[in-house]
Amino acid sequence: MPTITLTTDFGLSDWFVGTMKGVILSICPRATILDISHQIPPGDIRSAAFALAASYRFFPAGTVHVAVVDPGVGTSRKAIAVRTAKYLFVGPDNGTLSWALRKEKIKAIHALENEKYWRRPLSHTFHGRDVFAPVAAHLTRGLPVGKLGPALKNFIRLPWPEPIHRGNRIQGEVIYIDRFGNAITNINNEIVPRKSVSSCEIRVGTRRYLCPLKMSYQALPANALLAIPGSCGLLEIAINGDSAEKQLGLRVGTRITL
Amino acid sequence: MPTITLTTDFGLSDWFVGTMKGVILSICPRATILDISHQIPPGDIRSAAFALAASYRFFPAGTVHVAVVDPGVGTSRKAIAVRTAKYLFVGPDNGTLSWALRKEKIKAIHALENEKYWRRPLSHTFHGRDVFAPVAAHLTRGLPVGKLGPALKNFIRLPWPEPIHRGNRIQGEVIYIDRFGNAITNINNEIVPRKSVSSCEIRVGTRRYLCPLKMSYQALPANALLAIPGSCGLLEIAINGDSAEKQLGLRVGTRITL
Amino acid sequence: MPTITLTTDFGLSDWFVGTMKGVILSICPRATILDISHQIPPGDIRSAAFALAASYRFFPAGTVHVAVVDPGVGTSRKAIAVRTAKYLFVGPDNGTLSWALRKEKIKAIHALENEKYWRRPLSHTFHGRDVFAPVAAHLTRGLPVGKLGPALKNFIRLPWPEPIHRGNRIQGEVIYIDRFGNAITNINNEIVPRKSVSSCEIRVGTRRYLCPLKMSYQALPANALLAIPGSCGLLEIAINGDSAEKQLGLRVGTRITL
Repeated sequence: MPTITLTTDFGLSDWFVGTMKGVILSICPRATILDISHQIPPGDIRSAAFALAASYRFFPAGTVHVAVVDPGVGTSRKAIAVRTAKYLFVGPDNGTLSWALRKEKIKAIHALENEKYWRRPLSHTFHGRDVFAPVAAHLTRGLPVGKLGPALKNFIRLPWPEPIHRGNRIQGEVIYIDRFGNAITNINNEIVPRKSVSSCEIRVGTRRYLCPLKMSYQALPANALLAIPGSCGLLEIAINGDSAEKQLGLRVGTRITL
Repeated sequence: MPTITLTTDFGLSDWFVGTMKGVILSICPRATILDISHQIPPGDIRSAAFALAASYRFFPAGTVHVAVVDPGVGTSRKAIAVRTAKYLFVGPDNGTLSWALRKEKIKAIHALENEKYWRRPLSHTFHGRDVFAPVAAHLTRGLPVGKLGPALKNFIRLPWPEPIHRGNRIQGEVIYIDRFGNAITNINNEIVPRKSVSSCEIRVGTRRYLCPLKMSYQALPANALLAIPGSCGLLEIAINGDSAEKQLGLRVGTRITL
Repeated sequence: MPTITLTTDFGLSDWFVGTMKGVILSICPRATILDISHQIPPGDIRSAAFALAASYRFFPAGTVHVAVVDPGVGTSRKAIAVRTAKYLFVGPDNGTLSWALRKEKIKAIHALENEKYWRRPLSHTFHGRDVFAPVAAHLTRGLPVGKLGPALKNFIRLPWPEPIHRGNRIQGEVIYIDRFGNAITNINNEIVPRKSVSSCEIRVGTRRYLCPLKMSYQALPANALLAIPGSCGLLEIAINGDSAEKQLGLRVGTRITL
């Protein structure tokens, strides 16, 4: 049962995602296609990179992960397929795949250049349908990644913002905000017990907030601010029963000090 | 072909639903996973309970219904699996499952305590992925519900707001508002022909509106207000071609008199 | 592996789409169900017709396409199934199917009147669940379309707005706006190289904008306006990295001159 995941900024109001799935099933009728997200903000490569990194390892071994946030479609930007010990990744070579690949054992990187595995005629604006979907479908049918095009030595990597250690302080930042308004930081959950910290500080502009470290949202009364070890391995800032993003004006990049 | 349905407040913009599906397919590759809704307002247990109650009986016998609106995740709130004559239900024990279970013949109730069927390590904040998804996947593989943990005598039930009969009047209320702005009431469709009523009255604050009872939205001109026997067995208030919610300011709890 | 696609205005916040899928799988457990869109604006038959026309041909031969935007549900409006050389189409007879059928070789048209293939009891307001879903499921199981009801000679067709040729000018209009704010016109991509035009003009109220014709969004600097051959075979107006709809106030019906 070959599995393909899709992560895109195509939204769900138009037919874009549906046609990608139609193209996949036309080539590989047995494929199981799962959506990671199609609501990535248009062109937001960092959000897509984070969503894929936070989720890819929860899928069966052999899954083909397709991620298409592709503002450079139709230019000379490369398209790639990357084989790791456990998965395959397919997408434009613009950093979208790179955070998921940070901890993966990379076995092969290939440029998508063999037009035999594309849909014809090729559109100028929708390589999700015409290149990435058919390539993923062929991979799930067992096509070796090497058939897709020439081997590459590397791919474009987004820099991962490592938290900064200063004396006994750790300074991190908000890296993603989820639908609940919880702010995911770049600080690993593991740091917390090791440092036996009991709170962290957030700076939003000139204001500062103290967040007690808790193990459940409801460990504090409703509307209380807290920090909590998050489900993708990173510390999160949350408000019990409300949106920390809206209440505090948090954004990607907001500073967190532990 | 085992079927699993998902009802959550996780939204579709993040990777939460996708990872639940990845976890399920990793355990039960043959599962068919269907979404009921992931747009339940964050933490709104009543909306989730209603959505599940309105839909669960349209799925094949043997379906495992998973509903996760879980503001108490990480606290000592119980998690449960309930077996009825035709279905299995899995979720936190906070009322989410209870309206669907109102008319079901309950065969067994078990607490989810056997960690053998969970994902490890267990996160503090995402039991949808780490507890409910793997438990549902094991159930679709045929695991007896009794293996999941100790039998319980009962579960938490949300009170269902029964309409009040006063003389020859029935007083009900709006219980759910759908995407079209149609207001679903707690008054059964069956009451209508029995009473041979021809209209009902809505009170919004101090204003009153008369709604003629019709059998199609277009039985009246565009923008006309009407009451109509709804598709989940309950009377609905609607406006032909527009949103009754927006035009009249209807809300969950608005009074309806028949 | 029989495939069914769904195009509706039911949205994803309620249980409507989920119950359609439950009904389908109850009849045809092996069906693969793919969503084209459920975010068609409520009652917007033209948007649904365009979404289906832009996508139906990317699905496997034999696919049953179900499209339900059905403001006349419960009235005497007809419901139809149409068999073409490669596909089956099912929906209300209100024009929703008609743009997809413009270029299809039509083999048979039948009214849905045989209640044997419907869900009972029939609701007044949700024929998506009670008529169209079960009919589609029976078709994927191989039921001949002729069993569904009497043959019809025709169905309701939305007029397709053909662009107007005036001397060496072509005057078209915006026909759909996608989630990126790109405006899809009714002018075929093929016209462009034949005329060797290098730009087109948009009129929004009294203002006029010149759009250079380019082959990728990033062929011009960020925020530049351009025209580009679109992925569904029609010329599109776009802004590199932004929404042409929002920046220019484009709407369905806005005039485009080539």
